[in-house]
Amino acid sequence: MGFANLIDGRAIAEQIHAETATRIATLKSRGIQPGLAFVRVGDDPASKVYVGMKERTSLRLGIFSDTRVLPRDTPESELLALLRKLNADARIHGILVQAPLPAHIRAARIYAAVQPEKDVDGFHPVNVGKLLLGDITGFAPCTPAGVMQLLIRSGVTTDGAEVVVLGRGDIVGKPMLAMLCQKNRYANATVTLCHSRTRDVAGHCRRADIIIAAMGVPEFVKADMIKPGAVVIDVGVNRIADATAKDGSRLVGDVDFARVQPIAGKITPNPGGVGPMTIAMLMQNTVRAAELASAQS
Amino acid sequence: MGFANLIDGRAIAEQIHAETATRIATLKSRGIQPGLAFVRVGDDPASKVYVGMKERTSLRLGIFSDTRVLPRDTPESELLALLRKLNADARIHGILVQAPLPAHIRAARIYAAVQPEKDVDGFHPVNVGKLLLGDITGFAPCTPAGVMQLLIRSGVTTDGAEVVVLGRGDIVGKPMLAMLCQKNRYANATVTLCHSRTRDVAGHCRRADIIIAAMGVPEFVKADMIKPGAVVIDVGVNRIADATAKDGSRLVGDVDFARVQPIAGKITPNPGGVGPMTIAMLMQNTVRAAELASAQS
Repeated sequence: MGFANLIDGRAIAEQIHAETATRIATLKSRGIQPGLAFVRVGDDPASKVYVGMKERTSLRLGIFSDTRVLPRDTPESELLALLRKLNADARIHGILVQAPLPAHIRAARIYAAVQPEKDVDGFHPVNVGKLLLGDITGFAPCTPAGVMQLLIRSGVTTDGAEVVVLGRGDIVGKPMLAMLCQKNRYANATVTLCHSRTRDVAGHCRRADIIIAAMGVPEFVKADMIKPGAVVIDVGVNRIADATAKDGSRLVGDVDFARVQPIAGKITPNPGGVGPMTIAMLMQNTVRAAELASAQS
Repeated sequence: MGFANLIDGRAIAEQIHAETATRIATLKSRGIQPGLAFVRVGDDPASKVYVGMKERTSLRLGIFSDTRVLPRDTPESELLALLRKLNADARIHGILVQAPLPAHIRAARIYAAVQPEKDVDGFHPVNVGKLLLGDITGFAPCTPAGVMQLLIRSGVTTDGAEVVVLGRGDIVGKPMLAMLCQKNRYANATVTLCHSRTRDVAGHCRRADIIIAAMGVPEFVKADMIKPGAVVIDVGVNRIADATAKDGSRLVGDVDFARVQPIAGKITPNPGGVGPMTIAMLMQNTVRAAELASAQS
C-alpha cells in the first residue's frame, strides 16, 4: 500500500490557510485587521513551542498578534484582569489562553472569563454547549474542528459510520463526540466514546470504520485493534524516552503508526496530520470572530 | 421473573421529594420560599398536562409557582420581554419554558434568554456546556438527571458499563451521553449514541448492559435486541391510535415492555418510571437555585 493512504494534514491546512487569507484580504479592504491575543503563563516548554508556531502563522497570514507572557506564580486575579482588558480591546478579536495553566489557577474559571465572542479556542461553556446543541453560532475547539475538516476534505464519509473516539478530555474527546453525533450530513456518525474505564476498547476499535485516538497513551492503538480499511486519526502527542535521540526523547502519537498504516484505509501521519489543522482552525476561528465583530459594529 | 425487576420511578421520586421538602423547610426557616415560574405558549394539550402536574407538585412541596400562559401567536419579542421580567423577579428562582414552542419562535433564542442561574430546565447553552465539561456548578436537564438518579438509587452500576443511548435529542439523548461519560464513579460508562442514521442499532443494543431509549418511536426496543439481564430505561412517550381506548388513542413508550420485561435485569415501567423523576429533578433544581441565590445575597 506504500504511503498512498496518508491523510496529508499539512496540505489540507494550507488549503484552509489560503481560504482564510482571502477572507483576511476582504477584511483589510474594509480597514479591519484580525487580531489574536496569546496568553501564556509560566515556562512550559511545549507551550512556548505551540504559541511560537501560532504566532508565526498569524504573522504569515497577516493577523495582528499580541502575546502576553505572565510569570508562573501570577495570581488568578491578575490573569482575570488581563482577560478583562483583552475582552475590551477592539483590536483583539480572538483570545487564546495556552493550556496547561499552573495548578493554582482554576482553568474553568479562566476559560469562562474569555468573552464567548472572542473565545476562538472554543473552551467557554457557552461555546461547548452550543457545540453539543448543534448551534453553529458558537466557536468549535480547534483540534476536533480540524479533525472534522481532515475527514471531510479527504473524502471520508462519517454519515452512518461507526466511530470510536478514544479519550474523554475536554479539549479533544468530548467535543469530538459532540461534533460527530450531530444531525447533518458531515456528521451523523454513531459514536462510541472509550476511556480508561472502558472494558473492551479493542473490541470497540475492531468494529469501527473510523478511530480517533486522543487519550495520550504512546502507541496505544495497535494493528490488531484495526478493522482492515478503517480510517485512523492520531491526535496524540506523547514525549517518550529514546536514548538514540539527541535530547534523549522523542514524540510519538497514540497510534503504532508503522504497524497500523499498512492495514488502515486512510491514516494521519504524526507529525504532519492533526497538528497543522489545529493551527489552521485557530486562524479560521479568529478571522470569523473578526468578521462577526465587524458585522456587529 | 414476575415484576420483581421493576424500577419504581414513583417511589424513587417520592424519596427525592422528601429530601427536597427538608431543604425547603430549611429555606423557609430562613424566610425564603423557593419560587418557580412556568411559561406556556399556546394550547398544546400535552403541555397543559405537564405544566399542571408540575404546578401541583410545586404546591404540594411548598414551592411558590407563577404560571404565565401566552397565546399561540405571541411574538418572540414579547416572550423575551416576559423572560427579562422573570429573570429580574427576586421571588422567582427557577424559570421553565414548556416545550414545544410554536414554530415562529426560535427555541434556542428563548432558552438562551433564561438567566443561567434560573435555568432549572438545564437548556441554556452555558448549562449544557458545563454538563459536557463535568462542571457541577450548572443545572442538569431534568429527564436525564432523573435517569441518573433512577440508576443510582436502584443500585445499577454505570462505572465500566456498556451503555447505549437511543436518540440524539437536545432534551434527553445528548445530555444523557454527556452525563454518563464523565469521569466519576456514578458515571464512567462507555456510551454509544445511536440515532436514525445508525446502521446496526440492534447489534449495539445486544451488547449493552444498559439501554436508555429516548428516540420517540413506539415500542422500538424489542425482546430480541436485549442482552439477558440488561437494564432498560424507557424515556419514550408516544401517543398511538387504539380503537379500544376511550379517546381512540393511548400512550406507549419506546420499549415493547411486555416482551422485554421478562428478559431485562431491571426495567422501568412506563408510565411510572422516568416521568415522575423528571418532575422530582425539576423541584430539586428549583430548590438548589433558591439555595444558591440566598447564599449570594
